[in-house]
Amino acid sequence: MSAGHVQRLDRTVEALRAQGLTGLLVGPSADLRWLVGYEALPLERLTLLAVPADGEPFLLVPRLEQARAQACGAGDLVELVAWSETEDPVAIVSRRLGAGDGPRRFAVQDRMWSMFTLRLQAALDDASWVPGSTIMRDLRIRKQPEEIEALRAAGQAIDAVHAQMPDLLRPGRTERDVGRDVAERILDEHDVVNFVIIGSGPNGASPHHETGDRVLERGDAVVVDIGGARGGYCSDSTRNYVLGPATKEYQHLHDVLQRAHRAAVEAVCPGVAAASIDRAARKVIIDAGMGERFIHRTGHGIGLEEHEEPWIVEGNEEPVEAGMAFSVEPGIYVEGRFGARIEDIVVVTDVGVDLLNRRPRDLIVCD
Amino acid sequence: MSAGHVQRLDRTVEALRAQGLTGLLVGPSADLRWLVGYEALPLERLTLLAVPADGEPFLLVPRLEQARAQACGAGDLVELVAWSETEDPVAIVSRRLGAGDGPRRFAVQDRMWSMFTLRLQAALDDASWVPGSTIMRDLRIRKQPEEIEALRAAGQAIDAVHAQMPDLLRPGRTERDVGRDVAERILDEHDVVNFVIIGSGPNGASPHHETGDRVLERGDAVVVDIGGARGGYCSDSTRNYVLGPATKEYQHLHDVLQRAHRAAVEAVCPGVAAASIDRAARKVIIDAGMGERFIHRTGHGIGLEEHEEPWIVEGNEEPVEAGMAFSVEPGIYVEGRFGARIEDIVVVTDVGVDLLNRRPRDLIVCD
Repeated sequence: MSAGHVQRLDRTVEALRAQGLTGLLVGPSADLRWLVGYEALPLERLTLLAVPADGEPFLLVPRLEQARAQACGAGDLVELVAWSETEDPVAIVSRRLGAGDGPRRFAVQDRMWSMFTLRLQAALDDASWVPGSTIMRDLRIRKQPEEIEALRAAGQAIDAVHAQMPDLLRPGRTERDVGRDVAERILDEHDVVNFVIIGSGPNGASPHHETGDRVLERGDAVVVDIGGARGGYCSDSTRNYVLGPATKEYQHLHDVLQRAHRAAVEAVCPGVAAASIDRAARKVIIDAGMGERFIHRTGHGIGLEEHEEPWIVEGNEEPVEAGMAFSVEPGIYVEGRFGARIEDIVVVTDVGVDLLNRRPRDLIVCD
Repeated sequence: MSAGHVQRLDRTVEALRAQGLTGLLVGPSADLRWLVGYEALPLERLTLLAVPADGEPFLLVPRLEQARAQACGAGDLVELVAWSETEDPVAIVSRRLGAGDGPRRFAVQDRMWSMFTLRLQAALDDASWVPGSTIMRDLRIRKQPEEIEALRAAGQAIDAVHAQMPDLLRPGRTERDVGRDVAERILDEHDVVNFVIIGSGPNGASPHHETGDRVLERGDAVVVDIGGARGGYCSDSTRNYVLGPATKEYQHLHDVLQRAHRAAVEAVCPGVAAASIDRAARKVIIDAGMGERFIHRTGHGIGLEEHEEPWIVEGNEEPVEAGMAFSVEPGIYVEGRFGARIEDIVVVTDVGVDLLNRRPRDLIVCD
């Protein structure tokens, strides 16, 4: 518990009232961590924070999680209500929320499992439902100063892992071998490993390939996209390596990509549409005749979650604002042959942009 | 893709028809893996398998996941429909499912995120909704022979890690140090680490404590509950260790627990109520005057998921049947001091029970 959490709950109640919502129901999620600092396990046993617009918030936990919830301080912030194995937790929530005097509208956290959503809908059957992000998005999308410092520390941590990649990428090793070493290095600098993508040769053309049994060969291009979390906040950075001299073709592709990445970063400043950052990267790649090879959006927000709002994508005309943190990660993919992606996390400042990843963005030759 | 998957889809359609359901909608989940062998990432971009009771199933994937979905063979089994960043995936699902001629009832996979559930409910607004487990539970709860062999291999893998614990549990090390080593040993034997609980001293009293900064001391009791997955199937086993000679009090508690565990295992045979297995363990602990210290159910099913049906808990009077696999894991917890839990995975056979974990169940003294 911290003064920060008290303030966050107060702001949540304000937002509920402003939008005419009855309450917010939050299961194990980043929203729950942000609101009360509790990292609940995603169990088939319901954990649920209820924040009514009027009335006291409470955190329902399975009895065997009570000690964990208490230990993290959530119990000092809101009332802890423990339910035992033979009780119906949804009935407890429904009873405590009482009946509505008028039409009730609840926000349910975006990742609440449908098995709970359907039961809540059945128990509170007079109510209508909106996504929890209706409330949480605006509260979380602009990071507070302590959150930006946590993201900066995570960025430095992943940079330190990228610095070690030339030692790990060796012909004859499998992606899986390399991935295991990388995971250990991530843990040296983070609390948890979130993902390790070692996309060698043709596997680099699949943006979410993780690791496989492919053996690295001399001449391979390798996309390394890695991330962890440190103090709850995520890192995420991608660089491209080549085992031995790059072919002209791949070097050209990477040059285009590097210019696209730079153009997108330079496009970031408070007030510009998210889509315009995407367009800045895309234009460079289209102009180089590779537009169809850039098959995903330019970026995603990051914070307590690897992927959160804002989305840096065509169609999102909402302006980015000071405090927003997101990835800038254009990619170019040639199916069956290779791929490349350059990714940094950036934070919008009052006047422009701050990069949280600082490793060189060139194609790195591992000899 | 395998003949097994074709048959699983056929059985799903049969079950939908038998229950008068219009279709089943499945997001990234163990159900999706079981049905089509695709391990989809849980992304904010919708991946959804639709299995209509009448009509052809299809798998909607974000375009950048198309290669992964194709690579796992799901595309040979069902039509792959890729959606691009600027399309509305829910509109595509709704359009392909067409209009109902009569009242429509869909099953939505139990862990579908509410952000998708609410959008599906809005797009298919004539339909009513039931949990996906209405269909999936019966299909998955009795394991097929190849699934039991996969669970057996996972059981042997985690036994091999427990065998190494006396080398790792040393006074002066933190739980986190030990946990990191354990995670590496799990990876030697599994594809992924699911969880590592090192509950030393008072931390052993919190059943889901993971690891912390507590330094192991001579005399500590340590609950070690660990699991991973191998070939998709999960392991999960708990043993109790003590650093140096056990106190009489703790040894007595552990003796009671061991008798409770044995009583529960001996209670397992086809046709007995799940609750009666719970009661068999609980009776031993209650008779020893420690009933209030056994604060959770006796077990949970296991397979592609760490926790799945059947639940071995008071109130579940459904009989266990041949092919069901679940944990038997009574525990005794003394808050602020220590805890203990003994856990094995068992499979119900035609005539009784088979234990998939074989390590000694005694309190293990690490010298």
